Amino acid sequence: MLIRKMNDVEAETLDVDGAQNTTIRVVFGPRQGAPTFALRQVDLAGGGRTPHHRHPYEHEVVVLEGNLIMVGQDGEKPVTPGDAVLIPPDEEHQFKNASDTEPARVLCLIPVQHQK
Amino acid sequence: MLIRKMNDVEAETLDVDGAQNTTIRVVFGPRQGAPTFALRQVDLAGGGRTPHHRHPYEHEVVVLEGNLIMVGQDGEKPVTPGDAVLIPPDEEHQFKNASDTEPARVLCLIPVQHQK
Repeated sequence: MLIRKMNDVEAETLDVDGAQNTTIRVVFGPRQGAPTFALRQVDLAGGGRTPHHRHPYEHEVVVLEGNLIMVGQDGEKPVTPGDAVLIPPDEEHQFKNASDTEPARVLCLIPVQHQK
Repeated sequence: MLIRKMNDVEAETLDVDGAQNTTIRVVFGPRQGAPTFALRQVDLAGGGRTPHHRHPYEHEVVVLEGNLIMVGQDGEKPVTPGDAVLIPPDEEHQFKNASDTEPARVLCLIPVQHQK
């Protein structure tokens, strides 16, 4: 049994085109021996956003803190803590912090073979 | 993109030997078309616990609320909100609410083929 305090996991800047003010922590991934899916904590500072992109695997997302806008093929939807989001494979998507000043935090899980 | 308010998902009593005062909500599973892993919210009322058992697939757990004791092969470990727990396949485990009065809540993910 491996217990990790998520906030103590090293944060990496999400350094891809279109990302702003966003870090990612790989809590459970290949290095921790996660067999099937990777658990990541994503923090978006005020004005933060992930790239608007797509890929051939799903996201399962849980909002922990803040107010976000989830962008999908049906437009923009607001989400708040306690909301969970399933983004199917190949759907274009983006997470945007709805606030320019307050932080937002989500969990974002993917199949482990797609986690570096 | 499917958005669900986790607290609005129907709660089922965890009706297995050794479980007490515990409900489970399948937020994303086979019925929602989750491709790889199932997302469940587990609520333990005061004195609640899951069975002490094992199975040939992993759990990834995130504590959202309350104080719990995670029982594994190395004994009992306290966990609090912000902690994440990887329970490898085949390890005996149990979640216990550390409080007799206050609720506790976790996310618990498993490979989707093991979700009914």
